[in-house]
Amino acid sequence: MFRNFKMVSKVVFGRGCASQLGDILNAQRRSSKAVMVFLVDDVFKGGTLESRLPLHADDLMVWVNVDDEPKTSYVDQLTTQVKKHMVGKQDRHPSGVIGIGGGSTMDLAKAVSLMLTNAGSSADYQGWDLIKNPAVYHAAVPTLSGTGAEVSRTTVLTGPKKKLGINSDHTVFDQIVLDPELIAGAPNPQRFYTGMDCYIHCVESLEGTYLNSFSQAYGEKAMDLCREVFLADPEDADDKLMMASFCGGMSIAYSQVGVCHALSYGLSFVFGLHHGIGNSVVFDYLEDFYPQGVREFRQMMDRLGIDLPRNLTAGITDAQMNSMVDVALVLEPLWENALGKDWKTIMTREKIQELYLKM
Amino acid sequence: MFRNFKMVSKVVFGRGCASQLGDILNAQRRSSKAVMVFLVDDVFKGGTLESRLPLHADDLMVWVNVDDEPKTSYVDQLTTQVKKHMVGKQDRHPSGVIGIGGGSTMDLAKAVSLMLTNAGSSADYQGWDLIKNPAVYHAAVPTLSGTGAEVSRTTVLTGPKKKLGINSDHTVFDQIVLDPELIAGAPNPQRFYTGMDCYIHCVESLEGTYLNSFSQAYGEKAMDLCREVFLADPEDADDKLMMASFCGGMSIAYSQVGVCHALSYGLSFVFGLHHGIGNSVVFDYLEDFYPQGVREFRQMMDRLGIDLPRNLTAGITDAQMNSMVDVALVLEPLWENALGKDWKTIMTREKIQELYLKM
Repeated sequence: MFRNFKMVSKVVFGRGCASQLGDILNAQRRSSKAVMVFLVDDVFKGGTLESRLPLHADDLMVWVNVDDEPKTSYVDQLTTQVKKHMVGKQDRHPSGVIGIGGGSTMDLAKAVSLMLTNAGSSADYQGWDLIKNPAVYHAAVPTLSGTGAEVSRTTVLTGPKKKLGINSDHTVFDQIVLDPELIAGAPNPQRFYTGMDCYIHCVESLEGTYLNSFSQAYGEKAMDLCREVFLADPEDADDKLMMASFCGGMSIAYSQVGVCHALSYGLSFVFGLHHGIGNSVVFDYLEDFYPQGVREFRQMMDRLGIDLPRNLTAGITDAQMNSMVDVALVLEPLWENALGKDWKTIMTREKIQELYLKM
Repeated sequence: MFRNFKMVSKVVFGRGCASQLGDILNAQRRSSKAVMVFLVDDVFKGGTLESRLPLHADDLMVWVNVDDEPKTSYVDQLTTQVKKHMVGKQDRHPSGVIGIGGGSTMDLAKAVSLMLTNAGSSADYQGWDLIKNPAVYHAAVPTLSGTGAEVSRTTVLTGPKKKLGINSDHTVFDQIVLDPELIAGAPNPQRFYTGMDCYIHCVESLEGTYLNSFSQAYGEKAMDLCREVFLADPEDADDKLMMASFCGGMSIAYSQVGVCHALSYGLSFVFGLHHGIGNSVVFDYLEDFYPQGVREFRQMMDRLGIDLPRNLTAGITDAQMNSMVDVALVLEPLWENALGKDWKTIMTREKIQELYLKM
């Protein structure tokens, strides 16, 4: 049984293409009174991006804070805010939800668009194919590249009990606006960590047991582009990084991520680490699993003078350790992809603990 | 202004995935009485593929003949046949049109699905964005790889006056089923010529003036895959050729084809040559425009012992020559992509004639 992969419906790519956002959204507005909801990373408050947003009078603009990774409670709160905004409006739902920011902001936009049409808490839908109703139209304008959130069928959320995505065909964006000019200002090490998310996607996809030629083609291209961007500094590095993220995300369609992502989820759950940093912290200890990938990753780090956070787990309590291991072990497809059907004989609780204690 | 590129909605890829076609289509059948229309290349008559078609009692199966490239008259005839089949049925339109074959068959399926919901003759819609109404659901199961028809927004048709596609977002397939096992049986030189369509897409896209990083990423990957398939015979050549075709088609999204395709359209219009052969015949005379590409193409030909048809235009009439030149010159975006904004000063009628006379 092969997955029937839902692709993003429409993509516009090019330097300056974000200026077309207004026209693109106008085509989706159901009437002159239609409401669009903009969720925008609050790092852009007061900047030029804010002044370029194609807001109409009845639209809702929300600055979202993603200092922490998106939580289900935050998604529920934003959904309530949108619902309140819609009271007394002509339409029941907004004509669209647009996420402008990095992976976390895009994930918030996906999740809110889903929760407007699906009852209950977003925590009820963490898992695979639990969403019942189509989302409202949702679009993304990435301002950081690497996560692949722009093309994935998941929105990764930290819930009361687990860090796990809402995986559904309905999660996939209807529109993405890929403007390399928007990622030009991203500071290091954030740009690096987010880029490494993509690089690690490629390593885990290409060395996984689930790989097929579709995932391989995308994974190889994304890896080539990462190498160019982080080992050669081409003039069009932003364009290439944006395409690397796109291709890396597509590569996961028929494969999966692996050891690094599984461990990183646990680490983020307990320490609240951002996904990109979490991945980088973990990956540096995975030479046994991905020797060539880890070597190249260190080359990229050295080149940019990146200092990884160390000794995170020093002084960790037993309860925290158990929680990390539990979160990591839930992610069975990741382990199976990385280590094969017998992964449970290789990746025991003790082995995972041992790895975590190094970090 | 950047194109807002419509992508295929769903894609399933994998060896044997065509066996999922029945389930995929069942999810689209509007009722137990719903009709699916299968347009299947008649080379498969009596073969195993025929027995595997997931036909329901009320479905319509049509063997299509693509010895000639698809004509608008043939599209209109098939559309009438489908409409007649629907008389007395519960639904006005079929629940879907499925093309099973190479680029020509896929193009027929696209065109029929459009013409069921748009009045008049398909010849009325040859051009860009002339289609008014969405098509009925349409899916493709390629049995030859290279044309990129599985992902493109065009269906190339020969009309009474021109060879030109119906270019529209509505043309794009809702579903593609990419099963490398289905292309395993394609005989040479047909497999080669169709593969070269992809290779030439890459050369023309990568060397065109319209190129951006999106088209470049896809074009480079498709070219790498073509090289593997035609210069190295990998074990998974069918899988790789299928992905090359997919990526080559995606590469055209933001770029265009160029000199070879423009001239090939004229050649096909007058001599009824199939697109893949036409491209190969033309490409061999384009060393001035694509020196490296033509050299590598010849290497691939030599390796497979391909003999190109020669002296096609010997004894051509003035009327035929004028017609070829006219058809080629209509394709302005192709020329502009290949030669820049001043292309008219480079590619005169005389220059085109001179090239045609060599072929």
